[in-house]
Amino acid sequence: MLVEKKLFHLPELTTIGGATIKDVRVGWESYGTLNADRSNAILVCHYFSGTSHAAGRYAQSDALPGYWDAVIGPGKAIDTDRYFVLSSDTLVNLNANDPTVTTTGPASFDPATGRRYGMRFPEVTISDFVRVQKALVDSLGITRLHAVVGPSMGGLQTYEWAASYPDMVGRIMPVIAAPYPRDWLIAWLNVWAAPIRLDANWNGGDYYDRPAPTAGLVQALKVIGLHANHFESIDATFGRALADGGDKPSRDFAKTFAIESAFEDRLNPRAPLIDANHVLYLVKANQVFIPGAGGGAAAPAEGLKRIRAPTLLLYSPTDLVFPKEWILETAQTLAGNGVSVETAEIPGPMGHLNGVNEIGAQADRIAEFINC
Amino acid sequence: MLVEKKLFHLPELTTIGGATIKDVRVGWESYGTLNADRSNAILVCHYFSGTSHAAGRYAQSDALPGYWDAVIGPGKAIDTDRYFVLSSDTLVNLNANDPTVTTTGPASFDPATGRRYGMRFPEVTISDFVRVQKALVDSLGITRLHAVVGPSMGGLQTYEWAASYPDMVGRIMPVIAAPYPRDWLIAWLNVWAAPIRLDANWNGGDYYDRPAPTAGLVQALKVIGLHANHFESIDATFGRALADGGDKPSRDFAKTFAIESAFEDRLNPRAPLIDANHVLYLVKANQVFIPGAGGGAAAPAEGLKRIRAPTLLLYSPTDLVFPKEWILETAQTLAGNGVSVETAEIPGPMGHLNGVNEIGAQADRIAEFINC
Repeated sequence: MLVEKKLFHLPELTTIGGATIKDVRVGWESYGTLNADRSNAILVCHYFSGTSHAAGRYAQSDALPGYWDAVIGPGKAIDTDRYFVLSSDTLVNLNANDPTVTTTGPASFDPATGRRYGMRFPEVTISDFVRVQKALVDSLGITRLHAVVGPSMGGLQTYEWAASYPDMVGRIMPVIAAPYPRDWLIAWLNVWAAPIRLDANWNGGDYYDRPAPTAGLVQALKVIGLHANHFESIDATFGRALADGGDKPSRDFAKTFAIESAFEDRLNPRAPLIDANHVLYLVKANQVFIPGAGGGAAAPAEGLKRIRAPTLLLYSPTDLVFPKEWILETAQTLAGNGVSVETAEIPGPMGHLNGVNEIGAQADRIAEFINC
Repeated sequence: MLVEKKLFHLPELTTIGGATIKDVRVGWESYGTLNADRSNAILVCHYFSGTSHAAGRYAQSDALPGYWDAVIGPGKAIDTDRYFVLSSDTLVNLNANDPTVTTTGPASFDPATGRRYGMRFPEVTISDFVRVQKALVDSLGITRLHAVVGPSMGGLQTYEWAASYPDMVGRIMPVIAAPYPRDWLIAWLNVWAAPIRLDANWNGGDYYDRPAPTAGLVQALKVIGLHANHFESIDATFGRALADGGDKPSRDFAKTFAIESAFEDRLNPRAPLIDANHVLYLVKANQVFIPGAGGGAAAPAEGLKRIRAPTLLLYSPTDLVFPKEWILETAQTLAGNGVSVETAEIPGPMGHLNGVNEIGAQADRIAEFINC
């Protein structure tokens, strides 16, 4: 399945916080064909470090397809022979320098000044991401989405769609996501961001004409990657191997073990594609989010009461980002509000990341939910 | 129970790595009385951020007693009417500037140069901590310890005692501790240390005549504190309260929520008592540790085979530092090696920290094990 990246332009966005952002641009892509009455659209929302590339390949030679290719495609659980599946890059997407990504955020040029926004970019949250998606969906003449689905931060967006635009959503499938972060995750998000601020090159967010805070960024990505994984996978992969293959564990004080250099070896080449300020804005966008704010809700419980769409909650039993306890409690709350809710586990060795890498394990369940 | 801090001086230590450290000084304290045949000694080993202050108070006015006061004292589970309980500050104890702590590490003056060691201090590991403890125990004329006990890093020391000095140890009680860190924890320890290195004030460890890397140190302690806790406690305490009590969650971009400022508010006053280089050395000491190295073991499995002492393993079911799976697997391994092993859970809302703060929940089980 070959995929083409498209551009959506919104001349002006008013954020939940009341700010105005001009010239909003986000990338998007789609799989399958929109039917005549525009009733077969499914929106896929991406996770924290992800992009709109949910399925397929941009070129035959791409090493990997989009992140949920296991369940999106012709004849797959989310069947692109039946559905028009679309996905867009969020605002403040962290892969701001990736040529396949288009986003608007602190690395963008402020039309009012001609300079990069930096930390002068307005604070945005998940509800604002969804406002941009709604404008995209409106622009395609789609008045109702058959389903909204997505993992992790993508799951937050599905709750937001159901709570702020209940008449537009047929069903939602939040995967590895509770409806909003509780204090534990708020604190972890703070920890994710902290290394960037500690890097002297961050310079209050003004580094666009200077060396970027790459060391801090790589540390931030390392914390995120570790937190989203699980010991079952990490321990089996590394087995206490030393970093340099030597027999003494003390050669480099900072990097003794293979696991210590592995993250950095993988992240260093990726770092130039990522903007550090975007990470800070994404962290904030997740921390402050409650569903339904776009519909006027002022508190989490109030927002959840606006959700009416049938819901399939998939969770990972070893998730350390959105623990299964939060998700099972959400199922109870939604059921108590009269919503039709199902839950199912995604097994696998990777903790939170099971919801991305092991999604195929629940392909049948997903197909049943989407097609019912 | 009033406690007096004492000093142990070891003229010279040869480390597991073959380095020589002169003029080793560590603080220690004891509770109860050594009996005539010196057979009633119990050694308590402290956790990562702890000190030898396991029980009692230095003065009536102390706000809090030592960390395991719930189970150490007259008539308590580890009964100081029967046992002589002793505890010492480890090498590279992180509370190097705390007046109640004596330790030897990078903040110490190198007798050879008259300057602070900084990162020139030799690498040490848990086995070296135990070598110093053994010298202290020898100096008291104690040839056999009735028991060695301790939480977390203190638990690592109990395994080391049993594996390297099997004839000297009557029983061990490692609490919230597997015998060595697997890759998952090795990676987390790296994450704990990273903020210190990112702070420009760290300056390769030479900051003793300049401003200390306090911002990085506080971030490091924050990660440790969060990792050792659990969402059950954090979420119940904070309830998404905002940092400034205001109604808008955007006043300070870096600190929106109470949980984000709470850690720093608590850690900032403590930071001057802590040495950042000591944190780096402690991280390394834990990462590279395998039990039995002091007895010649070169691999974890080999070290475990040297353990013969009856063992009580206490663990927290929600522990994210030493997951219960590792500890239950250890019980199986030791039992397979013919060791008498029991296990029990420490319930509570605080994850890893249950092993410190909720130890009283297993007081009866501990008494039974210690007295049998």
